Amino acid sequence: MAAPWAHRYAQRTKSAKSSIIRELLKLTQRPEVISFAGGLPAPEVFPVERFREACQSVLQTQPSIALQYGPTEGYRPLRELIVAQMARYGIIATVDNVLITSGSQQALDLIAKLLINRGDRILTERPTYLGALQAFDLMGAEYVTVPIDDDGLQTSEMEQALRSGPKFMYILPNFQNPGGVTLSRQRRDELVLLSDKYGIPIIEDDPYGQLRYEGEHIPPLVVLDRTNLLRDNGYLLGNVIYLSTFSKVLAPGLRLGWIVAPPDVISRLVQIKQSSDLHTSSFVQMIAYEVARDGFLEEHVKLIRRVYGERREAMLEALHDYFPPEVSWTRPQGGLFLWVTLPDGIDTMKLLDTALRQDVAFVPGDPFYPGGDSGSHMRLNFSNAQPEQIREGVRRLSIAVAHELEHSAVAVMA
Amino acid sequence: MAAPWAHRYAQRTKSAKSSIIRELLKLTQRPEVISFAGGLPAPEVFPVERFREACQSVLQTQPSIALQYGPTEGYRPLRELIVAQMARYGIIATVDNVLITSGSQQALDLIAKLLINRGDRILTERPTYLGALQAFDLMGAEYVTVPIDDDGLQTSEMEQALRSGPKFMYILPNFQNPGGVTLSRQRRDELVLLSDKYGIPIIEDDPYGQLRYEGEHIPPLVVLDRTNLLRDNGYLLGNVIYLSTFSKVLAPGLRLGWIVAPPDVISRLVQIKQSSDLHTSSFVQMIAYEVARDGFLEEHVKLIRRVYGERREAMLEALHDYFPPEVSWTRPQGGLFLWVTLPDGIDTMKLLDTALRQDVAFVPGDPFYPGGDSGSHMRLNFSNAQPEQIREGVRRLSIAVAHELEHSAVAVMA
Repeated sequence: MAAPWAHRYAQRTKSAKSSIIRELLKLTQRPEVISFAGGLPAPEVFPVERFREACQSVLQTQPSIALQYGPTEGYRPLRELIVAQMARYGIIATVDNVLITSGSQQALDLIAKLLINRGDRILTERPTYLGALQAFDLMGAEYVTVPIDDDGLQTSEMEQALRSGPKFMYILPNFQNPGGVTLSRQRRDELVLLSDKYGIPIIEDDPYGQLRYEGEHIPPLVVLDRTNLLRDNGYLLGNVIYLSTFSKVLAPGLRLGWIVAPPDVISRLVQIKQSSDLHTSSFVQMIAYEVARDGFLEEHVKLIRRVYGERREAMLEALHDYFPPEVSWTRPQGGLFLWVTLPDGIDTMKLLDTALRQDVAFVPGDPFYPGGDSGSHMRLNFSNAQPEQIREGVRRLSIAVAHELEHSAVAVMA
Repeated sequence: MAAPWAHRYAQRTKSAKSSIIRELLKLTQRPEVISFAGGLPAPEVFPVERFREACQSVLQTQPSIALQYGPTEGYRPLRELIVAQMARYGIIATVDNVLITSGSQQALDLIAKLLINRGDRILTERPTYLGALQAFDLMGAEYVTVPIDDDGLQTSEMEQALRSGPKFMYILPNFQNPGGVTLSRQRRDELVLLSDKYGIPIIEDDPYGQLRYEGEHIPPLVVLDRTNLLRDNGYLLGNVIYLSTFSKVLAPGLRLGWIVAPPDVISRLVQIKQSSDLHTSSFVQMIAYEVARDGFLEEHVKLIRRVYGERREAMLEALHDYFPPEVSWTRPQGGLFLWVTLPDGIDTMKLLDTALRQDVAFVPGDPFYPGGDSGSHMRLNFSNAQPEQIREGVRRLSIAVAHELEHSAVAVMA
């Protein structure tokens, strides 16, 4: 069923990874499957009543703004709310530093369009977020990668990677997706110094920063970046572009994220966003503002932390109880994911197949590695299932793991 | 206030047109200005009460779908509704032919990503829609253009343009933006034959097709394309990708459009959309579905036709009454715009300046010409202002026009 002109596709589509996660999510929609695959928030914590009130209020008082075209930069009161909210985390920006995006994924798309020429190298953590790779791939990116450990990106391995001249660094400092690890304070300081020394900007992707269940908050890179001290008229300037989203603290179905950057970068991104989708839905932005305002979001985040913290505990406990000693995993201090390392030689795509026959799902590690060569990993999400389901899911998964360990070549040789 | 790494912007941003329309719209927000500049629907016809009910219903019955991540292809009931609605206009597609986009502008962005390599030539009408040029520019497009007259694209001028090897043709057959003209049936037949003969696909952009106030409906290119007769399992195949939107028939603040294409093209576009914004807001899609369902949209379109038809009449009448004989304009049979031609030598950017001092605004013709060299034109929107405002706005505009005619070099020489 190919179109007669299919040979006309652009070069960039050749490198588009077929989306494994996407196809997986379809498989896991059978109701009997316990899925640790997606990065889905818990629907139980969606503030539905507050959304109902917000819809009524917006449509009663400002329908002709909510349903009309709006400014590309975004709905100003929402941008102001974001500025106020970020200030609680030490990010001192102005409204002119903030661009509303159609989810964080669009932020990655706009940044890829702004910065990537075909063949440019991007420095990423290894592993890193699959969606970022997809956005960067489409603009023709190549990669230079630096491994992570329990303290995040191994900054001691950075200098060589930086000397290869990457266009920018893409970093997830908090509760990394997929690794679940957090970049230590010392390494953050090192990283912003390296960024300044080599003149290479950092894209700091922080979707989960507010969702910490253990340990102390560590300032984001955009705050530690000393070049930001060079303020001009109170605007934030410097080497770090900061991304965040309402997807994990309010609702992903809104598709609302934002970019924080120097004003001239924002104004370039506004032009690019205009050619990408004109602007993000006015209606959605106004409703999100009505929901989040008057301190509601802060209170709501506390609820999410409590619920997800319990789920993380349930998963860690079940892994401890059910998984064999050859298998290890990270202990994330926040976020949505933990990262499981299996003995080398276990094919996690095959493991997924076995797991699906046990009615449990996860994401294999491979697609999170820009250059392939992933070792044997799986990403487990703990936000979307209830604690008792998590325990049952891990039990099922342990059966699949035991089966693969028994049948793998490695196990035979051991 | 440039970022220290501003030299790192990608080549593609160099060609990004600074958005004249966007800056203009800011100028025209003074309440005393009567604006014919934007392509804004009339807020008076937004079905606000229906939206209120839809929000209640969606949040009452399906909040955990509406607020959660959803499939990249779009909300299935909405895709089915689109299929049913298009069938009324003779477009026989299946749900697998339809991808929901974040407005028609995103459809243009996704298609640009799918098809344009840097330096590829795109065939467009001259003039053509500015937003399409912006999306194509960003992927490095060059242009080959064919002029329009009262019957739309001059197909007699096509062969030479096609022999230069354009990657695709971008065509607005109905009530063209900015020209206001409609492609005749005979030329449509010629165009699809040329597309087939040269193997060059057509992007048919049809945001206004349902908004006809005069004359008979003409089948869209996607229906006339004979290669679509080569159906496979009932799917639509062929040389035409068809785009439309809810922006003009429901509300632009939703940011909801769609693409109709062969299934393998859709599946490529789904991958590209996933890397662009994951998916369009589930919440917005479900609300649009609730609003549009059960025949509401068809009834609502009748109301819009009546209101906009009156406004078109008001503008044509006022132009006839106030404008001097040296000035001509198109008589659109539908849509939102008409196109005014002034004597050569009138600088419409300067005219805009004069007009704004009279508290009236329009969009100068220049940015609608891919290669510049526009002659002297202005685009007037008639959907957003009430008939008496339209009359008053045209009166003010005629004063500005008379002033420029008097002071232009052309007038002096005459």
